[in-house]
Amino acid sequence: MRIEEGRMGGGGGDMELVLHPRSEIEGRTKKLQSRMEGLTGAIIFQAVDMLYLSGTAQEGLVYIPSDPEEESVVMVRKSLDRARAESPLEVEPLRSLKNLKSDLAIPEGARIGLELDVLPFNNYARVKEALKDADLVDISDTIREIRSVKSKFEIRLIRAAARILDAGISTVPDHLEEGMAEIELAAKLEAEMRALGHQGSLRFRRFNHELPMGHLMAGPNAAYPSFVASPTGGVGPSLLQPQGPGFRKIRRNEPILVDYGGVYNGYIADETRIFSIGRLPKELEDAHEAALKVERWIAESLRPGNSGREVYEISEARGEELGYKDNLGGPAGSKCGFVGHGVGLEIDEPPVLGPVDHEILPNMTVAVEPKMIYPGVGVVGIEDTFLTTDSGPTRLTRLPQEIWRI
Amino acid sequence: MRIEEGRMGGGGGDMELVLHPRSEIEGRTKKLQSRMEGLTGAIIFQAVDMLYLSGTAQEGLVYIPSDPEEESVVMVRKSLDRARAESPLEVEPLRSLKNLKSDLAIPEGARIGLELDVLPFNNYARVKEALKDADLVDISDTIREIRSVKSKFEIRLIRAAARILDAGISTVPDHLEEGMAEIELAAKLEAEMRALGHQGSLRFRRFNHELPMGHLMAGPNAAYPSFVASPTGGVGPSLLQPQGPGFRKIRRNEPILVDYGGVYNGYIADETRIFSIGRLPKELEDAHEAALKVERWIAESLRPGNSGREVYEISEARGEELGYKDNLGGPAGSKCGFVGHGVGLEIDEPPVLGPVDHEILPNMTVAVEPKMIYPGVGVVGIEDTFLTTDSGPTRLTRLPQEIWRI
Repeated sequence: MRIEEGRMGGGGGDMELVLHPRSEIEGRTKKLQSRMEGLTGAIIFQAVDMLYLSGTAQEGLVYIPSDPEEESVVMVRKSLDRARAESPLEVEPLRSLKNLKSDLAIPEGARIGLELDVLPFNNYARVKEALKDADLVDISDTIREIRSVKSKFEIRLIRAAARILDAGISTVPDHLEEGMAEIELAAKLEAEMRALGHQGSLRFRRFNHELPMGHLMAGPNAAYPSFVASPTGGVGPSLLQPQGPGFRKIRRNEPILVDYGGVYNGYIADETRIFSIGRLPKELEDAHEAALKVERWIAESLRPGNSGREVYEISEARGEELGYKDNLGGPAGSKCGFVGHGVGLEIDEPPVLGPVDHEILPNMTVAVEPKMIYPGVGVVGIEDTFLTTDSGPTRLTRLPQEIWRI
Repeated sequence: MRIEEGRMGGGGGDMELVLHPRSEIEGRTKKLQSRMEGLTGAIIFQAVDMLYLSGTAQEGLVYIPSDPEEESVVMVRKSLDRARAESPLEVEPLRSLKNLKSDLAIPEGARIGLELDVLPFNNYARVKEALKDADLVDISDTIREIRSVKSKFEIRLIRAAARILDAGISTVPDHLEEGMAEIELAAKLEAEMRALGHQGSLRFRRFNHELPMGHLMAGPNAAYPSFVASPTGGVGPSLLQPQGPGFRKIRRNEPILVDYGGVYNGYIADETRIFSIGRLPKELEDAHEAALKVERWIAESLRPGNSGREVYEISEARGEELGYKDNLGGPAGSKCGFVGHGVGLEIDEPPVLGPVDHEILPNMTVAVEPKMIYPGVGVVGIEDTFLTTDSGPTRLTRLPQEIWRI
């Protein structure tokens, strides 16, 4: 398999966007079809899933019939020209959802899968109206499970995201100065990554979850709780973005948490490193070393045959043995409840390394993040993105793991 | 009315987040209640609307009973402590949606408003299950209409957003160099604005719409179409972010479109200025002057008593008179279909200055954006955010409007 690097654009032609080979889209479609028993088909509207199954995220839909002998139908409202340039499939114009039943040749009494975890109710209601008597069921878990196992095409993009991320985080020493605001340092780091090809945003699937590019917080701010599904929180720059870097000034002798998503052509790698100006208290340095040990144990158990629950239990047991029961993942009462998560086109993908029965399979890309939380003081610890294989995981993010003392 | 600037944080205390006075939240709630005839109440889940009606965007809900004698109920899952510090209302823990009916004391046969334009179907279904026989109806248009008229508290924040935006865009000459990628210039400009207090992201309400902070595109890229609701498009950095700045290198003698949202404590101002390295072709310089004239005509008509449709028709007629029928808002067949939009906590607020009957009222904040699109060449034109008053609008964004030649 190879990556087709297409040259697109409105006349400029300097940029390179990675297009999807037809075989890649067909392989994904077949995987989905093999799990559509009892369904007539699935209509996909969300940008991320649509890109995954059609090769374009322009505004429209892709219809996946459950019969593998039938072709997918891509319909786009805007930009049709662009969708045709991007997708390896045929793309038809989408004029109105009202004609959906005839446009997609959906029979009477059909059973249709929809992404009911993300599709807004009004959008659902328009589909329901158009398809009349069809039974509409949630297919989002199936799509998310299929997406959790990556192809060679996808792994190459995630490796590229990891390279951007390593390169970006490694520039922190070039920018970090005592007294600068968290958000100033974040902006400089993000500018470095964007110049290297970072997409400039990353996707959460969960409702109300938004995160521009990462978490960069210093001292107690990193341990300040937020609603976001993460061991760390942050005050953030406003009540509407109440997480991540804020305006607090970075000081000497406090841990600076740099937790970013690198994103290349949609695909995410996730990495955390700790920086400090001057030394940290010995207690935090020891806790950091313990987190590195926990990551190694997790990596040893992160292999096919284990579940997310088993890996999480190993992490919790090892953390407790080392004396960090009340720090690993947060203090009692506000533990984040997981120590890792899948990454891909979204940052909150399965498998979750937490109290759930997500099976570990080969070719999953999993962010492992044992972090030691000290409320009122700060956060130390580590995060790396691993690729699972039958013979144990490969670490894709490659920066030195010790505390980077400036 | 005054802005309460609270000092919050996990121990740092350097950052300032603007908290909502109780009177502000009560005023908004009363406006909503005055338009809830026939409803028992409304349950609000979306972060933006929740912030608007409770003063916190932590994960949870706010219940607005239609009876103005009853108090709103704020329930938060995470972070409860933080929601209590942020909201001027009482905040209770949210343990499970299953008890919603008793927790909110919702009677049999209730009629409950929900944000059905943004609430995912599965979230809707959980509410439906919890409320049993309740009739669930869409209240999103009402909320959006109420939010479209701003209070003094909000106008102060939008003015602050406009100051950050003016200051940020005015640094383009400090960073612009021939041969740099669009996304590199964008990142530098964004870093300047973030250091000044920009929130680092802005919110679209529309499904699948995401935009980190703005559109910065050079030459033909600015005219390259995208799915996004905007006169301009852009290739973007990936198929999953197929709009805005991409990796094309900026050249001499082409228009550089700099269209950003300034965001301060959640509130958006929107502004576009055109830059160039060296002169532009005379045709584009003339088109830019024409766009400035169209903006002045729009501003004259942007007053209470007119509708969005009337303002749009004036814009279209004036554009045609000046000879730009096929450029203003895009060429025939791919016109964007509007020449302005409300801004506030979201960038796609009413009133739309387009073929819709949105009434212009005092204290609306409206981005007016007559832009001349030349496919294959570029975009010139202008965008400013205006505050409507009974005696005509005030321009809140204040940079010089001519082409900035470097």
